[in-house]
Amino acid sequence: MHSFRVELGAGAHDVHVGVGLIDHLGEIALRAGLKPGRAALISDTHVAPLYARRASDALTGSGFAPETIEIPAGEASKSLAVIATLYDRMTAAELDRASVVIALGGGVVGDLAGFAAATYLRGIAVVQVPTTVVAQVDSSLGGKTGINHPRAKNLIGAFYQPRAIVADVATLASLPEREFREGFAEVIKYAAIMDAAMLTDLERDLGLITARNADTLEAVVARSLRHKAQVVSSDVHEGGSRKILNFGHTIGHALEASSGYGHYLHGEAVAIGMVAAAALSEKHAGLSAEGAARLLRLIEAAGLPVKVPHGLGANDAFIASLRLDKKRVAGGIEYVLLDRLGHAFTRTLSTGEIIAALP
Amino acid sequence: MHSFRVELGAGAHDVHVGVGLIDHLGEIALRAGLKPGRAALISDTHVAPLYARRASDALTGSGFAPETIEIPAGEASKSLAVIATLYDRMTAAELDRASVVIALGGGVVGDLAGFAAATYLRGIAVVQVPTTVVAQVDSSLGGKTGINHPRAKNLIGAFYQPRAIVADVATLASLPEREFREGFAEVIKYAAIMDAAMLTDLERDLGLITARNADTLEAVVARSLRHKAQVVSSDVHEGGSRKILNFGHTIGHALEASSGYGHYLHGEAVAIGMVAAAALSEKHAGLSAEGAARLLRLIEAAGLPVKVPHGLGANDAFIASLRLDKKRVAGGIEYVLLDRLGHAFTRTLSTGEIIAALP
Repeated sequence: MHSFRVELGAGAHDVHVGVGLIDHLGEIALRAGLKPGRAALISDTHVAPLYARRASDALTGSGFAPETIEIPAGEASKSLAVIATLYDRMTAAELDRASVVIALGGGVVGDLAGFAAATYLRGIAVVQVPTTVVAQVDSSLGGKTGINHPRAKNLIGAFYQPRAIVADVATLASLPEREFREGFAEVIKYAAIMDAAMLTDLERDLGLITARNADTLEAVVARSLRHKAQVVSSDVHEGGSRKILNFGHTIGHALEASSGYGHYLHGEAVAIGMVAAAALSEKHAGLSAEGAARLLRLIEAAGLPVKVPHGLGANDAFIASLRLDKKRVAGGIEYVLLDRLGHAFTRTLSTGEIIAALP
Repeated sequence: MHSFRVELGAGAHDVHVGVGLIDHLGEIALRAGLKPGRAALISDTHVAPLYARRASDALTGSGFAPETIEIPAGEASKSLAVIATLYDRMTAAELDRASVVIALGGGVVGDLAGFAAATYLRGIAVVQVPTTVVAQVDSSLGGKTGINHPRAKNLIGAFYQPRAIVADVATLASLPEREFREGFAEVIKYAAIMDAAMLTDLERDLGLITARNADTLEAVVARSLRHKAQVVSSDVHEGGSRKILNFGHTIGHALEASSGYGHYLHGEAVAIGMVAAAALSEKHAGLSAEGAARLLRLIEAAGLPVKVPHGLGANDAFIASLRLDKKRVAGGIEYVLLDRLGHAFTRTLSTGEIIAALP
């Protein structure tokens, strides 16, 4: 097991990465300073049948009284309607200020349960128990919670830190292949923006990773989370240095939005975005051609897309999405570039320059 | 004008109390560090016709582009349905992370607009512009925002500090008499729990206050807010010392809930709660009979109720509400008592002891 602390001032908390940790959820919650009592174990219709019982038993074993609440799996659950049902269930279960929310699932469950915890009685404790690669290496850490508005993803939300993150890599064994692979876009991103040695290790270990070797996954997830923790600690509310985590995400988000959410998985869109960002880095930031090529090869070897299919791409919807980008500043978009593998910075690029780089 | 700073670490902000400040909203927003740009001026159907135009003009004069959003006046607006319409309107107005929400109105507007600001794009700036006595002396300061759940008031919410509070006491001139008077329950509360000299001043100035003399109101509002600021600064998330602000509120809340919200105004219920708390303080905490009598006389002289009418009171609904009190602990309820006028502390009392004190 890898354990470390995320330094976030008042929001500091521990992260645990290991195999079979779900069966130790209760002890971990106690160690995080939570008091035995009522709890809401929030999961979805895919994950709950696999792990909710074990998680519930582990909590009960440490004196918690968990009520399991199942939401429909899928992004459509990140809605005001579903959050309203969570409030209803949490109230019916008589959760009070000392109660705990356990978010057991992927990014949707984490965002939704995190937001419910952030806004129930003006904030009660939440423990994130991510069960997908994306959630384990990325979305569970950093305190971003929220739901979607018909006009924009994650429009409604809060920054709210969990009291602990428990990443049980054994849960990755049950992921469908496509969901498993998409998560590695974020892993490759950390290597690209801040850890050149990790890039070499990923190239070497890709076989073990795709075979879902538990030890390798544990090491990769822990290394990714440490990187994210380092960036987030220095910039909790995303004012400055945290921006480098958006590497590949400008085009990624625009592709997701313009192709209709659901066409691309998030990681797939980010993969294409990273290929574009590598090309732009070569053109504007001095990244070597060999560096850009290595990154593209790794993304491709991880089974991720590196090109937009014919018909999608720089159409009107894509351009409109790009113009709505949250990183928009005067004169263009604040774009994350690499001057070398393992080092990122931001620079303003025009939307024209960005569109031209679409692979 | 009285101006002072509320020390809240990262959430520190200025408070301005004066006459005619609505016409200076734009300058005050700039001085608070906000950038000219899009803004949502959220008000209700009672307050908007009186002040929204002037507020909007003042903001426009300083380079802001405010969109006025009117919600139905009344507690029923503190709902998920109304917050959903706020998100819709804010999105339609293309508010971004640099935009500002201006909450112009009483407690309902402040709570609702504050919560919308807290949760729009994970938090954008909000300036509170309270226009009732209750909002000016109490609810605008402290960062409590939220909406009601059918099963509990303020169940859904967040702690979220405003970037400034602008209390224009001239707006109090337009308040209906009953709403004007109820606000003084909270004013008397500050005197009772932390400022014996203020109690003497209130006794002396009551005539000027009820005549709504602007200078007197400015002094009273500023003094109240300074007291609240001092308590909140030392206990932002209501873990300890902030509890003394609940003086009179245990019975007050139970009366409000058990009589059907709307029967009592909040301040009226708190007034009766303070009379009960004074009696309990005399019995359990050494408050002198003369002290308890002075407090009762001032509450009565302020035109507030000091007794529950026949038929209401310690009925089943009242007792059930008391048992649901958030300040419930093992063995009873954490109750705020006075050992002398101007000094409060908390002690656990049984529900039986509390019920027996109902005036």
